[in-house]
Amino acid sequence: MISQIEFSLEPFKRGFHLITDEITSHIDIGSIEAGLLHVFIKHTSASLTINENADPTVRLDFESHFNRFVPEDAPYYKHDYEGSDDMPAHLKSSTLGSSVTIPITSGRLNLGTWQGIYLGEHRDRGGSRKLVVTVYY
Amino acid sequence: MISQIEFSLEPFKRGFHLITDEITSHIDIGSIEAGLLHVFIKHTSASLTINENADPTVRLDFESHFNRFVPEDAPYYKHDYEGSDDMPAHLKSSTLGSSVTIPITSGRLNLGTWQGIYLGEHRDRGGSRKLVVTVYY
Amino acid sequence: MISQIEFSLEPFKRGFHLITDEITSHIDIGSIEAGLLHVFIKHTSASLTINENADPTVRLDFESHFNRFVPEDAPYYKHDYEGSDDMPAHLKSSTLGSSVTIPITSGRLNLGTWQGIYLGEHRDRGGSRKLVVTVYY
Repeated sequence: MISQIEFSLEPFKRGFHLITDEITSHIDIGSIEAGLLHVFIKHTSASLTINENADPTVRLDFESHFNRFVPEDAPYYKHDYEGSDDMPAHLKSSTLGSSVTIPITSGRLNLGTWQGIYLGEHRDRGGSRKLVVTVYY
Repeated sequence: MISQIEFSLEPFKRGFHLITDEITSHIDIGSIEAGLLHVFIKHTSASLTINENADPTVRLDFESHFNRFVPEDAPYYKHDYEGSDDMPAHLKSSTLGSSVTIPITSGRLNLGTWQGIYLGEHRDRGGSRKLVVTVYY
Repeated sequence: MISQIEFSLEPFKRGFHLITDEITSHIDIGSIEAGLLHVFIKHTSASLTINENADPTVRLDFESHFNRFVPEDAPYYKHDYEGSDDMPAHLKSSTLGSSVTIPITSGRLNLGTWQGIYLGEHRDRGGSRKLVVTVYY
């Protein structure tokens, strides 16, 4: 069995944001004994990843780390006409990934205690982002 | 329902290459209302990722970025007997990933307007690469 | 059809470790003609990835590379109270990923000849790690 829904997130500012609750609000998995949840982002300058859901400084450090190791205005970038934040956003998107897949067990996402789903918004003004959530069970 | 096919790509030169059309030419998803497509590469020195399908300079900048942040001949590499491009190829493969999973909706890959599937060919002469494509619906 | 199992790995020391056989020992896929295997790690300071299963120096070079490009004690880290190895572990976890998905074909994992599943243990003392393995076919 497969169910699928597409929806848009409100615009987030540049950085990393916890969106687990937003995603689960769109699906009903309470009666699924075993399955998988796939979340896909339909953009090349934002990303999805799983990381710590508690201390918000982890999300700040993600932004600092990826800004340093995927720099803006690198002298070798040829794709620069969409702004300084554009090419790094593409690189961050592929480094972190466009989708996450998470087990569903006994009616709940089977995440570890400290895991949550992050949106990586890599543009200065990325606007609203579209997600496709697919549940198979 | 699951369908699966394995095939080989023609050899690509080192760099990033758009292979969306090549992949969809091997599958028939026109009658699938909702499902998922999984593409897997059976190699440890090449990768699959999703990024911008329009301006080819994005693919050039991917190559430049990963060459700089996954250097050849790093003094601390111990695995060096397969050539300067070998150990970086392994590291790029894991940084970018060996597979992509994409939603299928109303008979089409539900990619964003600007998204395509990239092959990352990380060896100087990687030769033909084998892919396994699995569709579940 | 979906089957799912959760189990714990023995503690591994910091670094990269080949766990393909450990994973396949927990599942029975011999009668599956076509399917997918999903492995998920329930932690934010360890990772799963696919890479070379032969020469152990590849795993050593992975550790050296990610220690250099995801440094400890970076001056801009704000999340530092869990130890020098903690924030880099979160970043490595998201760079490499929390799950792998691998095709099953004719009763076997359809990996390339040289591919194996790596556990990335990014903490100095990460302890036992929980995995959820889901097979769908």
